[in-house]
Amino acid sequence: MTGRDPWATPRVAGPGGRVGPVDASLSPRYGGAATFARLPRLDEIGTADVDVAVLGAPFDTGVSFRPGARFGPGHVRESSRLLRPFNPALGTEPFARQQVVDAGDLAINPFDIDEALADVETGARTLLERATRLVTLGGDHTVALPLLRALHAVHGPVAVLHLDAHLDTWDTYFGAAYTHGTPFRRASEEGLLDAEACMHLGVRGPLYGPADLTDDRALGFTAVPCTELDAVGVPGLVERVRARVGDRPVYVSLDIDVLDPAFAPGTGTPEAGGMTSRELLALLRGFAGLRLVGVDVVEVAPAYDHAQVTGIAAAHAVYELLSAMVAG
Amino acid sequence: MTGRDPWATPRVAGPGGRVGPVDASLSPRYGGAATFARLPRLDEIGTADVDVAVLGAPFDTGVSFRPGARFGPGHVRESSRLLRPFNPALGTEPFARQQVVDAGDLAINPFDIDEALADVETGARTLLERATRLVTLGGDHTVALPLLRALHAVHGPVAVLHLDAHLDTWDTYFGAAYTHGTPFRRASEEGLLDAEACMHLGVRGPLYGPADLTDDRALGFTAVPCTELDAVGVPGLVERVRARVGDRPVYVSLDIDVLDPAFAPGTGTPEAGGMTSRELLALLRGFAGLRLVGVDVVEVAPAYDHAQVTGIAAAHAVYELLSAMVAG
Amino acid sequence: MTGRDPWATPRVAGPGGRVGPVDASLSPRYGGAATFARLPRLDEIGTADVDVAVLGAPFDTGVSFRPGARFGPGHVRESSRLLRPFNPALGTEPFARQQVVDAGDLAINPFDIDEALADVETGARTLLERATRLVTLGGDHTVALPLLRALHAVHGPVAVLHLDAHLDTWDTYFGAAYTHGTPFRRASEEGLLDAEACMHLGVRGPLYGPADLTDDRALGFTAVPCTELDAVGVPGLVERVRARVGDRPVYVSLDIDVLDPAFAPGTGTPEAGGMTSRELLALLRGFAGLRLVGVDVVEVAPAYDHAQVTGIAAAHAVYELLSAMVAG
Amino acid sequence: MTGRDPWATPRVAGPGGRVGPVDASLSPRYGGAATFARLPRLDEIGTADVDVAVLGAPFDTGVSFRPGARFGPGHVRESSRLLRPFNPALGTEPFARQQVVDAGDLAINPFDIDEALADVETGARTLLERATRLVTLGGDHTVALPLLRALHAVHGPVAVLHLDAHLDTWDTYFGAAYTHGTPFRRASEEGLLDAEACMHLGVRGPLYGPADLTDDRALGFTAVPCTELDAVGVPGLVERVRARVGDRPVYVSLDIDVLDPAFAPGTGTPEAGGMTSRELLALLRGFAGLRLVGVDVVEVAPAYDHAQVTGIAAAHAVYELLSAMVAG
Amino acid sequence: MTGRDPWATPRVAGPGGRVGPVDASLSPRYGGAATFARLPRLDEIGTADVDVAVLGAPFDTGVSFRPGARFGPGHVRESSRLLRPFNPALGTEPFARQQVVDAGDLAINPFDIDEALADVETGARTLLERATRLVTLGGDHTVALPLLRALHAVHGPVAVLHLDAHLDTWDTYFGAAYTHGTPFRRASEEGLLDAEACMHLGVRGPLYGPADLTDDRALGFTAVPCTELDAVGVPGLVERVRARVGDRPVYVSLDIDVLDPAFAPGTGTPEAGGMTSRELLALLRGFAGLRLVGVDVVEVAPAYDHAQVTGIAAAHAVYELLSAMVAG
Amino acid sequence: MTGRDPWATPRVAGPGGRVGPVDASLSPRYGGAATFARLPRLDEIGTADVDVAVLGAPFDTGVSFRPGARFGPGHVRESSRLLRPFNPALGTEPFARQQVVDAGDLAINPFDIDEALADVETGARTLLERATRLVTLGGDHTVALPLLRALHAVHGPVAVLHLDAHLDTWDTYFGAAYTHGTPFRRASEEGLLDAEACMHLGVRGPLYGPADLTDDRALGFTAVPCTELDAVGVPGLVERVRARVGDRPVYVSLDIDVLDPAFAPGTGTPEAGGMTSRELLALLRGFAGLRLVGVDVVEVAPAYDHAQVTGIAAAHAVYELLSAMVAG
Repeated sequence: MTGRDPWATPRVAGPGGRVGPVDASLSPRYGGAATFARLPRLDEIGTADVDVAVLGAPFDTGVSFRPGARFGPGHVRESSRLLRPFNPALGTEPFARQQVVDAGDLAINPFDIDEALADVETGARTLLERATRLVTLGGDHTVALPLLRALHAVHGPVAVLHLDAHLDTWDTYFGAAYTHGTPFRRASEEGLLDAEACMHLGVRGPLYGPADLTDDRALGFTAVPCTELDAVGVPGLVERVRARVGDRPVYVSLDIDVLDPAFAPGTGTPEAGGMTSRELLALLRGFAGLRLVGVDVVEVAPAYDHAQVTGIAAAHAVYELLSAMVAG
Repeated sequence: MTGRDPWATPRVAGPGGRVGPVDASLSPRYGGAATFARLPRLDEIGTADVDVAVLGAPFDTGVSFRPGARFGPGHVRESSRLLRPFNPALGTEPFARQQVVDAGDLAINPFDIDEALADVETGARTLLERATRLVTLGGDHTVALPLLRALHAVHGPVAVLHLDAHLDTWDTYFGAAYTHGTPFRRASEEGLLDAEACMHLGVRGPLYGPADLTDDRALGFTAVPCTELDAVGVPGLVERVRARVGDRPVYVSLDIDVLDPAFAPGTGTPEAGGMTSRELLALLRGFAGLRLVGVDVVEVAPAYDHAQVTGIAAAHAVYELLSAMVAG
Repeated sequence: MTGRDPWATPRVAGPGGRVGPVDASLSPRYGGAATFARLPRLDEIGTADVDVAVLGAPFDTGVSFRPGARFGPGHVRESSRLLRPFNPALGTEPFARQQVVDAGDLAINPFDIDEALADVETGARTLLERATRLVTLGGDHTVALPLLRALHAVHGPVAVLHLDAHLDTWDTYFGAAYTHGTPFRRASEEGLLDAEACMHLGVRGPLYGPADLTDDRALGFTAVPCTELDAVGVPGLVERVRARVGDRPVYVSLDIDVLDPAFAPGTGTPEAGGMTSRELLALLRGFAGLRLVGVDVVEVAPAYDHAQVTGIAAAHAVYELLSAMVAG
Repeated sequence: MTGRDPWATPRVAGPGGRVGPVDASLSPRYGGAATFARLPRLDEIGTADVDVAVLGAPFDTGVSFRPGARFGPGHVRESSRLLRPFNPALGTEPFARQQVVDAGDLAINPFDIDEALADVETGARTLLERATRLVTLGGDHTVALPLLRALHAVHGPVAVLHLDAHLDTWDTYFGAAYTHGTPFRRASEEGLLDAEACMHLGVRGPLYGPADLTDDRALGFTAVPCTELDAVGVPGLVERVRARVGDRPVYVSLDIDVLDPAFAPGTGTPEAGGMTSRELLALLRGFAGLRLVGVDVVEVAPAYDHAQVTGIAAAHAVYELLSAMVAG
Repeated sequence: MTGRDPWATPRVAGPGGRVGPVDASLSPRYGGAATFARLPRLDEIGTADVDVAVLGAPFDTGVSFRPGARFGPGHVRESSRLLRPFNPALGTEPFARQQVVDAGDLAINPFDIDEALADVETGARTLLERATRLVTLGGDHTVALPLLRALHAVHGPVAVLHLDAHLDTWDTYFGAAYTHGTPFRRASEEGLLDAEACMHLGVRGPLYGPADLTDDRALGFTAVPCTELDAVGVPGLVERVRARVGDRPVYVSLDIDVLDPAFAPGTGTPEAGGMTSRELLALLRGFAGLRLVGVDVVEVAPAYDHAQVTGIAAAHAVYELLSAMVAG
Repeated sequence: MTGRDPWATPRVAGPGGRVGPVDASLSPRYGGAATFARLPRLDEIGTADVDVAVLGAPFDTGVSFRPGARFGPGHVRESSRLLRPFNPALGTEPFARQQVVDAGDLAINPFDIDEALADVETGARTLLERATRLVTLGGDHTVALPLLRALHAVHGPVAVLHLDAHLDTWDTYFGAAYTHGTPFRRASEEGLLDAEACMHLGVRGPLYGPADLTDDRALGFTAVPCTELDAVGVPGLVERVRARVGDRPVYVSLDIDVLDPAFAPGTGTPEAGGMTSRELLALLRGFAGLRLVGVDVVEVAPAYDHAQVTGIAAAHAVYELLSAMVAG
């Protein structure tokens, strides 16, 4: 025998005593608990400062088409096992330059949307007492609203960068005010958004009518549809984003269906003609230097995924956003 | 109880009494019959004028490799449930500015190709007595020939815009003259095509020999291979198309394998290196203003699809073509 | 050409002018609209008497684990294309000896369970004005409660034959009274059940505690677990059923997870150790001669199905139940 | 280095110079060409006597529902890589006691059924000049007819043991006389069958009408439906088979859909309520000692299979039949 | 808001302060960490006595065909989320009558089998200092050998009840002594087994030759093949087991391929003709009252699974074995 | 009958007596043995000169995450059935201008990496006595090392063009020196590489630390990450490649994970943000005129593929490389 202890979980250490992921050269990536990027659980780091807490919001009662995003948080975590500590594209080490932990999943009522909103808001508020920033793995897009409520209590109105195939500023659906198609209208109505600075990125596909767009603008959004992406390219898109949000507090809300169905089959309301994962990751890297106060990555529905294609894209997106928080 | 009638199928109304899709804010998209885009059946609109009839041609006895396109029409319809009435990219409402209906599926003989050709031609001719334009959901590419025969009776020779990985102008296969690899050679021989104006778009992959290309040109086609797409871009492609077809009557024949297998795994003879769905949709939007007299979208083989990725791309392609008919 | 009209939908005729399924020898089974067994829609038979209406209840907001049964009705219909008119095992013709039609899908609120219950009850009551019996394709098991309410208005308390891996007589879940785990407790409390005559068949798997079973008995149920099936066999099971229900009005509520996951992977809360499809079909044939007043087949979740294995089992189960209504 | 030659294909030797499968302890089962059971190709054994030739008949133009059995032969071969030389259940070594080879695939016209029938018959006749028995991997059930024609030339009328969910004695379909639903009616009409001795085993599911059964009996068949299997068990079934066929020359025609869809999802016209693979294999072992002159295993459609479940069942079925030829 | 804390993980309590699974009526089953049956981690119960530790052995370098069992432990845990505390079939509460915890995964060298054996043995020995019994989730069958070595140090020779399609007493493969086909030969040679009392249950499929069986008997095993199961039934099998092992210490080694591929597609060397999950669970319940000292459930290969059919069967098998430890 | 011999395998002939693929117009592509592109086996061309031998290296014991590439060679061959003889993009006929054959699979020890390396090297050296160039279908990337050893014996140090998401120049993993993450470090240390001329193309995703990059440069590599691809485009990339390798002997080592997971889901360590298949094929065409002495295409893991999307991309990549050998 080699003297190695097969029960040890050797971790990559960072400066300032930060605790990083399990060391993959000593403990195979396919083994052990599926925390995000194999990072420590919140309860494993004692009373150390938490810069970023990754949390799961398993909830999908707000969806209007394919459900299943309730299994999203676990799937994204499972799909994050290959992430390594150094991001060469941004030249940074997102787990060493800040303490990132996995806070686990919220227990959210699946049968009552109002109560679910309360569950998410309560959970986020509690966690914000401990962690500076939250990265939420959805769940459907309904969860963005209570997350914005919790953030508003800390930061006031925020600029939302909303990556999505859809506007998600519809009013009601089947008479319901709170669904995955309405979070940003409600957030705008509740004064949670900086109406000068919100943007939709990657919108595409058919709408109900021209009023969808005018309503949306009135709520504080500028939309850059996917069809403009070829013309301006990712660098052009980044430029517009930076011009609009400046140094405001920014919340990034990423619906995985901003990707084309080829890159994200595992989602609930897929629309053809979307971004590639390369474009998405480049765009997110362009957020380095922005004042990111919170992030969600939502609408990953594993029952429709294949070989974790969607989950891996989502995990990489989170990784780039974590990197953007410390880069630049 | 709310007083709402759960058996009602409230429909979006258009100008001039046009009947649109079922209203998704009152009737969930995952329920109800799977007509294309949840549009009315032909028999639901009484004697109203029909601008466009969507029909299914479930037939795949002409395929040389993977069969299964006989299940294509139903799959594309199921994949079209998320389509909404307003197309912001073209600024038009394809179901309000023209009456679009779903005419259902033709009953086509699966055991005898000659009879199948007759079935499709008969069915198309009958339907053309009622509808100005046909949009056919295949089925394998064999069905393009009888559709062109039926259109020829109305419009004379047409310019075919053929989007496909393959030329489909081969001569015989296993001694058979009528297969999914030969419709455009036969159509050219029969005088159905405007030999000055046909184009292949997106062709790629290996051929049998250099003669394939020279034969093809002799039949009236210009080919723009996928390898040129990066050089000229979609706008360049659109420009060439418009230059070649002018104001001739145009038939768009779209084999879904023009998409890369990542975007259209559910097809019978996939070739790597194809278009993205974003490129395809942009290209189709470029057809706005052309004199479109008919459309087919063929070779969707659901048994090889995953999470409706292929079906959704096909449904969006049809949507853009329906929009192009009224835009511009 | 053959003179055959490819737009015709020739139907198998029954005695008394009954309208049967589309004739598969003239119109391929893979084409045409996916009504159950290719039977006529309710609106296709004019004012004729309706013996049985098949309806869809696309709803799954009551599920506690895997959602997706909202897509169940369409999937079972698609999986019923191969059903033929004569049942040799029971020696009867279920579509000729009674008029069976497909009434389509109810529009059910996905965001509010209370309203959903009202939608289903309203829809069922309306349909019962036209049809003698209802066969409902779920949807999750929550829908059994409003269906029982509607039936109670016609028949008074009924004997429920409940085929399921689970008891579904739990009390609340996450504080919610109306979910897919509670319909029969609520039904019992509301006096909808004949407390002398209800049975669970095929129950198995772990429970929360021994009280689950005593509670259940107090609500009026006898349980025959799957573990007893080997001892008594299907004939023994049938005997017990007939002894218990006698000539009472019987409602059959079939959760597809009564089948082993090998036979029904496409469901939300699968439990190993279940029935085979052969056992299930034999059991259902044993219901011939009972006074069947209603049927539901629920919890088919297509996103987890493969090659329609689950859908086909469900479609055959419906077929046997339709046959049992006229056999014996 | 070990001196082992990685290009060698060491084979298990049998008595009398028989050449067996590649030795799996020296050459991994997942590598090398996918002949059936890793047996030698016909051209690898020189001029040695051939007792059994396994051949592929990739053809599916005769199917009425899901196509894809054209890929069946390759799939069954790929699924046969785990077969080993000794059959403990029958106590025999099927590859040592007879020379079994893989003859490869016939080239069959996919576009013309008449020509396809000729292709199969020609190919079978040629191969019968070399091999005593043929084991054909389909392909759809249409191929049974030309195989019976070829066998008739050698053996005269044969007793067909037909394992299938369906009777396959229908008359015409869409006007076509030769399809996968009609081979045994045609064979009976052509005098290829011993009308005293044919049997259907495992039939189940709905029929078109009672006449299907009376017609079938008139063609020379006795049917033992799957519903009887529980009553008599496999031993009872074997007894009936042996009583009926005696020492007549027997052709076994096995449609994989005789298995329940759980055991054979990868097929074209699945019916719930079928055999388990354990029952099927036990039944086939019961054929040991019969005078088996030919075998087909048809209707394996890989696009609908999962994890080779269907392919493995088919491969084991072939293995038991090969064993039955030398056991007893 | 409800006052409920969405970060709480309320657990079902047992007698004697035992800590049970997360309460599913307050915390949805699809959320939270995927420990086995949502039981506490070893580090969550402080210094309490541990009756049973469930551990993962993610390793598959010993496989000869399809790899992938390295992902088995996580998959079985994910598939165990629906397990509830009370086992009605045995009338016991396996998590209340003994403290069961999830010890996590061993870190096992994937590149060197010898070192891997040492890793597993070391890990098991360490854990046995804390826990009375181990339940190991594989991984491939190679891991049984080091587990038996660790158990031997505590209990001396044990009676192995080996449920598997294969004997796993082969000698070498490709010159390698330690693979998933050889653990029980090595264990026998090393004196780890009670040669009067070992049994194979469910063996089936072809072997290399008759010597496989005679060798096997010489190593201390009696084999009950799957083909005998129909004759004696599960009760007969249980009787034989109890007669053979008596009150000896028993190790149950369960290769999931003892199930038919329909019930366990997700495994590496599937053989048709296996047990149903109902038979397997009944058989395992028959082990109640035996002196069970250890258990493994191996060869679950998730890449070949569908809808967790295999994982759920494995999870239920573990549940029955945990129940058998306290029942009777 | 037509007189056609269904057992014939008519082949496309090339100049100089070269033997090409089976003629698809006479023998369907879905039938017959799955050699690469339906080319002849090595033993079918007698003593003719061999320009290129395609061989399989089924081995995956070197993988650190998802195994399964041992099934890669067969899968790529199956996915190559649609390749035709003429490459219009390069204007060449790769099977006519050189004799290409399929040499089959090496038998490689799956349990011992050292022996496996020897197996591959021995096999390659033997084959190089017959064939001028080798194209190896992996298998995992470990096989590149012994292939480079064999090539070094013929050509001396070579310039490696390494297309991969990863650097594969790590040092050890779990103490092991020879894995799929280390071949190029070992090759550099052994002097097999031309340290002036090696390149990584398409690298992306996180690394362990900045030292990974400096180490890599010291081993002789220049890296062009995927993030630079948008800036320079494929033409820019080709230019850099040609500038760096000049007329040195070039070995192309293509890990299929250089493609985005959308284009290559079937691989073991997928990273989001990769190349499209169109970019990859264009890049490979840019290698025309280079002095290509060997090629491998590795890490195709079929259990994670869907509809052969990955396999087809790999087959086309091989096709372009075979074309590049004779074009320009």
